[in-house]
Amino acid sequence: MSPAKPTPPDRSRGELALLRRLRTLLNQGGEEHRALDVNDDMCLITQDFPTLLWSVDMLMDGTDFDSGQHGWEQIGRKALAVNLSDCAAMAARPVAALCAVALQDSLSMDDAEALIAGAHACGRQFGCPVVGGDTNSWPQPTAISVSVAAVCELPSGPVRRNGAQVGDRVWLSGPVGGSILGRHLTFEPRVQLAQQVADRLRPHAMIDVSDGLALDLWRILDASGVGAVLDPAALDQATHADALRLATQDGRPAREHALYDGEDFELLIVVPAQTADEDCRAFGLFPLGTIIAGGDLSFGLPDGRREPIPIRGWEHFQ
Amino acid sequence: MSPAKPTPPDRSRGELALLRRLRTLLNQGGEEHRALDVNDDMCLITQDFPTLLWSVDMLMDGTDFDSGQHGWEQIGRKALAVNLSDCAAMAARPVAALCAVALQDSLSMDDAEALIAGAHACGRQFGCPVVGGDTNSWPQPTAISVSVAAVCELPSGPVRRNGAQVGDRVWLSGPVGGSILGRHLTFEPRVQLAQQVADRLRPHAMIDVSDGLALDLWRILDASGVGAVLDPAALDQATHADALRLATQDGRPAREHALYDGEDFELLIVVPAQTADEDCRAFGLFPLGTIIAGGDLSFGLPDGRREPIPIRGWEHFQ
Repeated sequence: MSPAKPTPPDRSRGELALLRRLRTLLNQGGEEHRALDVNDDMCLITQDFPTLLWSVDMLMDGTDFDSGQHGWEQIGRKALAVNLSDCAAMAARPVAALCAVALQDSLSMDDAEALIAGAHACGRQFGCPVVGGDTNSWPQPTAISVSVAAVCELPSGPVRRNGAQVGDRVWLSGPVGGSILGRHLTFEPRVQLAQQVADRLRPHAMIDVSDGLALDLWRILDASGVGAVLDPAALDQATHADALRLATQDGRPAREHALYDGEDFELLIVVPAQTADEDCRAFGLFPLGTIIAGGDLSFGLPDGRREPIPIRGWEHFQ
Repeated sequence: MSPAKPTPPDRSRGELALLRRLRTLLNQGGEEHRALDVNDDMCLITQDFPTLLWSVDMLMDGTDFDSGQHGWEQIGRKALAVNLSDCAAMAARPVAALCAVALQDSLSMDDAEALIAGAHACGRQFGCPVVGGDTNSWPQPTAISVSVAAVCELPSGPVRRNGAQVGDRVWLSGPVGGSILGRHLTFEPRVQLAQQVADRLRPHAMIDVSDGLALDLWRILDASGVGAVLDPAALDQATHADALRLATQDGRPAREHALYDGEDFELLIVVPAQTADEDCRAFGLFPLGTIIAGGDLSFGLPDGRREPIPIRGWEHFQ
């Protein structure tokens, strides 16, 4: 909800640094470990439930929504939809959701019910009803945590972040930027599209754009050990009208909004080099660029020069 | 953390009333529904994952812990342990945990890591490592949400709340009351005991005492459509030394603390009428009373009279 804060990915504080520390911590321990990785949008439990994918998200009043401005049903919808977007990022089919809430004391029973009803209605639309949870109240702003269980039905397993290869092409499921003007609440999680794309195009990597195109693409590059060069003209084609609208309001270039605004919840899809462009366009995808060797993200300019794209975006805990 | 608030179970506000409204809401919808019930400690996903049990809890600073007083590692431990106690309540074997946090901005990276490390260490002790999560920060007190996936390996399925029958006997896995003096942070979830008891004694119903003995026992009675009569002398035997200690501090009777204090995380276990007392005592269980017809909870006095036990306990959202 606040403007993106600059975030070089190598500082000692910040969400990315914390995640690195946690990854080391959680990967200690050995034999009883059952997780695939803590580095994807969902966790795959490799023992006991070989096909279970599983995610959790926390949304907070004043950060992810503004209860003074948004209705509780809309807020509940968003709390579920961001988890469905995590499912989409891995081409998983969501199955059921749990919803835990710490409700501000001042909420009415109707508000509380509207919140859960909004989540449940959104979930049911995607075959993922709310099946339980935990209700609490406290004198602080409301926090909502949704956990989703999903199943991956692809023979190749869920699509992860770490499979991008040199020569692969980067596509986007829809235009991005300026979601703060409203789409961050009303976006459609790309659940069906992701499963169809995964089935037809066999992408090497996917992620949903939750913290900004540049930062989320960097997550794929970092996990895959590759870089990417983007076509600036192609990015302009994939820039949402809301980014242009916001640019006229705040004076920042629309391209900045396309690169760094969070909560678009479109999918970044990395397809094999040999994939025909028409097959991607048939799904309405927007081309962005190409995976290259090295770890850098840059624009490829018409004169052949590369212009580095700074990696920043929405990052908690700094 | 605050003293128990009086809570008749039939008011229009309060967590119980909210849960009733939510149950109606979430049970609408029909065919795509996959949950067993929203009325147990965990949800059983009946489609896609026939053996998956699943819970979520939210813990908040100032309510479930006090970060001014408790260490973050201890707090993380509790956040995981309360979910393990939900597993125990259904005789499930926990498999993996996700941890979502809304960390107060003022926390250091070390605090954040200690919190997750405490949760992970507690989980590993029970074969339930933290395998992922969601890290966020905000300017409000810290909220922690843990979700646990578990498996039920009993041929008879998970032990639920709704199976208590007239003539059954009510037992308790350990003494209760006064947990606020420290045990609410350091308690041992009864995970192994629950599986052994479920395997050997085939209990008709179980629940963990999280909101107070009276309220949690009432939840079994309500779900099962029965009542219970407790032996006051037996309850005194099952009253923790901390309850006596607290009674000398606050002047309330120790029996009140045994009935109404929350967060003991012992198990209430309802066994079939024919179960031999010795078999229960072999597990260190404490007898409490007997399931009767009707919906009332009372003490059976030595002269044969019944003394009603008011139903109240820790209840959010009032």
